[in-house]
Amino acid sequence: MVEKKMDCVKIGLIGYGTVGTGVVKILTENSSLIKKRLGYDIVVEKICDIDISTDRGVKIDKSVLTTDINEIINDPEISIVVETMGGIDLAEEMMLSAIRAGKNVVTANKALLAEAGEEIYKAAHEVGVDINFEASVGGGIPIIRTLKEGLVGDKVEFIFGITNGTCNYILTRMTEDGMAFAQALKEAQELGYAESDPTLDIEGLDSAHKLAIIIPITYGVKVDYEDIYTEGISKVDPIDIKFADEMGYKIKLLSILKDTKDGLEARVHPVMIPFRYLLSNVNFNLNAIYIRGEAVGTILLYGQGAGMMPTGTAVVSDIIELSRNVISGRKKRVPPLSFDYADIKKVTPKSMDDIVTNYYLRFSALDKPGVLSKISGILGDANISIASVIQKGRGAGEEDVPVVMMTHEAKESDIRKAFDEIDKLDIISKPSIFYRVEDTTIKRGGRKDEWR
Amino acid sequence: MVEKKMDCVKIGLIGYGTVGTGVVKILTENSSLIKKRLGYDIVVEKICDIDISTDRGVKIDKSVLTTDINEIINDPEISIVVETMGGIDLAEEMMLSAIRAGKNVVTANKALLAEAGEEIYKAAHEVGVDINFEASVGGGIPIIRTLKEGLVGDKVEFIFGITNGTCNYILTRMTEDGMAFAQALKEAQELGYAESDPTLDIEGLDSAHKLAIIIPITYGVKVDYEDIYTEGISKVDPIDIKFADEMGYKIKLLSILKDTKDGLEARVHPVMIPFRYLLSNVNFNLNAIYIRGEAVGTILLYGQGAGMMPTGTAVVSDIIELSRNVISGRKKRVPPLSFDYADIKKVTPKSMDDIVTNYYLRFSALDKPGVLSKISGILGDANISIASVIQKGRGAGEEDVPVVMMTHEAKESDIRKAFDEIDKLDIISKPSIFYRVEDTTIKRGGRKDEWR
Repeated sequence: MVEKKMDCVKIGLIGYGTVGTGVVKILTENSSLIKKRLGYDIVVEKICDIDISTDRGVKIDKSVLTTDINEIINDPEISIVVETMGGIDLAEEMMLSAIRAGKNVVTANKALLAEAGEEIYKAAHEVGVDINFEASVGGGIPIIRTLKEGLVGDKVEFIFGITNGTCNYILTRMTEDGMAFAQALKEAQELGYAESDPTLDIEGLDSAHKLAIIIPITYGVKVDYEDIYTEGISKVDPIDIKFADEMGYKIKLLSILKDTKDGLEARVHPVMIPFRYLLSNVNFNLNAIYIRGEAVGTILLYGQGAGMMPTGTAVVSDIIELSRNVISGRKKRVPPLSFDYADIKKVTPKSMDDIVTNYYLRFSALDKPGVLSKISGILGDANISIASVIQKGRGAGEEDVPVVMMTHEAKESDIRKAFDEIDKLDIISKPSIFYRVEDTTIKRGGRKDEWR
Repeated sequence: MVEKKMDCVKIGLIGYGTVGTGVVKILTENSSLIKKRLGYDIVVEKICDIDISTDRGVKIDKSVLTTDINEIINDPEISIVVETMGGIDLAEEMMLSAIRAGKNVVTANKALLAEAGEEIYKAAHEVGVDINFEASVGGGIPIIRTLKEGLVGDKVEFIFGITNGTCNYILTRMTEDGMAFAQALKEAQELGYAESDPTLDIEGLDSAHKLAIIIPITYGVKVDYEDIYTEGISKVDPIDIKFADEMGYKIKLLSILKDTKDGLEARVHPVMIPFRYLLSNVNFNLNAIYIRGEAVGTILLYGQGAGMMPTGTAVVSDIIELSRNVISGRKKRVPPLSFDYADIKKVTPKSMDDIVTNYYLRFSALDKPGVLSKISGILGDANISIASVIQKGRGAGEEDVPVVMMTHEAKESDIRKAFDEIDKLDIISKPSIFYRVEDTTIKRGGRKDEWR
């Protein structure tokens, strides 16, 4: 093999906002470390943005700044194009232009990949360029690389992810400090952890984007982002956080991906997890992804899921990975989606009706005799077996009493069926509430010593 | 570039024990998954062991088994040699033979790399072959790959590792269940977490091996394994676990690597860490490595640090990584030690005398007036400032009372100097005890909101 000796790899960057600035900062401030590791330079040849006048506090020659994307696309010396502009439509257009011009691409744009990834992966496959996107899931956490390389020979049984720092911050404040949702959200916004329109985060859509991205890499299949069941945290009631705490659980917004014998589970919703699981101790705006591999067993990766520098670090790792290929004239050392693009078929995740897990149930009942027997009778008829119950006296000034139960494994359609019936009872004063629970000790055949 | 189309990469395995069996199990049981990901097969061409008659419960053609290492070394079709035999001298000899025969090598052997790595890295550098060793640190945890690739563009500020499952299991049982050290060790031995001669684990030597391996990868320098300060857990007293708990800390055996302005810190010893640090919640035989990067911030990687299948998974990831290079006729895509071998200079870690950290101090004093004033006077004269004190009454039947203190940041030589003086006091009945503490809230300028 003849290797062209190059003393640098040139990159073009589209979007000089928060993440773009982080990338340029790391590449310039750590340039001597990077050169020492690689033996050549990574040169930021062009940066394209509509705003090229604002000072980003980074030492960079002004001549690299441009408002014309074609200066990047048409520069034959640029071999890697980094998209850090965000948004979907324009970002997609620019990514596709770069790919069609034969550039390898790096992106941190999870919304783009989840909603328009199909077009982009296909184009990269057809042209034969590389596409890397470590920063799109879990920010600085090396989750994509771990799935594609560390666990390349293993079968993943399931993944639980805390991949939205906004939700985790809000839930942590609600749990540790008894805050209401609205108050915790307001604080998250003030701290810059939440957008002024927080919908994408708090309704779980951002977590679903990230889940959509890791599905092909994990299982070699793809799902439509819209087919992922998604439920956010805006309806989480402090009373359930309190009961969960009494029973030894925390409520976390989890992205769940599971390979089951009757189909793929891909879902985002609040989950109760026991204190002893490390994931329940992941707090504030930190992210973590728990992977259970058939051979590797337990893996948890934890870190900053967002922010200029953590996300920038992941983008830089992608740039450097691709630069190693560019330097050796090699492409697609690792398939972008871990499997051959042509082999990746679309599947529909299991319906939530068919999910089997443990449930936390809370009923608001009038303080009358026979309540527990009526509720448990209906649950029993629906095949739902109760593991534990909390029933307390009525608080001062309250009309109803909460009846809280933890179930053994049950089918979600059975829970919903029972709820329909229970909520019609005249002793029930408000719609009943359930949370899904992950706890091996109350699973059939579950092991008490499993701490995860 | 002309790519030779190959339909397989052939490997030879030396040592068909626990880890070797795990590797072969994964490669055979997951062969279709691996082929789907790679587009070619990984073929176990030869397995060399002194015992080729015992059935390992793996489906493999008997003709691959041999007792003659030369069948691997001299087979021109074998491009990757996997060393899973363990031990040092013979393993070194075999690794060097394989390297000199132009084979790429994979090993899980931390003792070998820590104690004889120099020769092996040098030989691999001279011959120009690859050497991968993901499994040598943290078993199934992708720590080496994360340091070499995920954080390739970042500067590591420090690393705290729980990298010995035996010690972590023993400390967990002592902490959670009040066991004495000997009892917890016995249980760990019964469960197979500890060897019948547990010295290497409980005295911290195994952790020091692993620390020695990650130093070059992290900082581009090397240290002699013997120069790493190493203190195990055999002297950890349940009374200090109890006091730590009262003050909100857990005792963990940590491997610490830190880049400070006056030198490199590389040390292994018990440390108190606050409950709110995720690392303090890493229990039983699980391992975790916490990395603080200048740009990436917080990263923690958690998982099974040992065992047939977790370690096997990491070895397989290395085999597959090298196979991608073999298939494309490429070598050293990533330098084995993350930096050019020729640039890696030896350094001596900072003396423990020069360590500056927080300390937990416990004095055994006679129950007489003036004790606290005498002790704190000597500490003050030695420049040691006290953050908090616990002094309790004498227990029934006890002659002395424990006086427990948490200090602000102090220099270890000052602590030792003060201890020399304090232990000479006639009110002190037993040698005084200290533990190093990692807690940002009691550091000067430390941030209360830092949870790690």
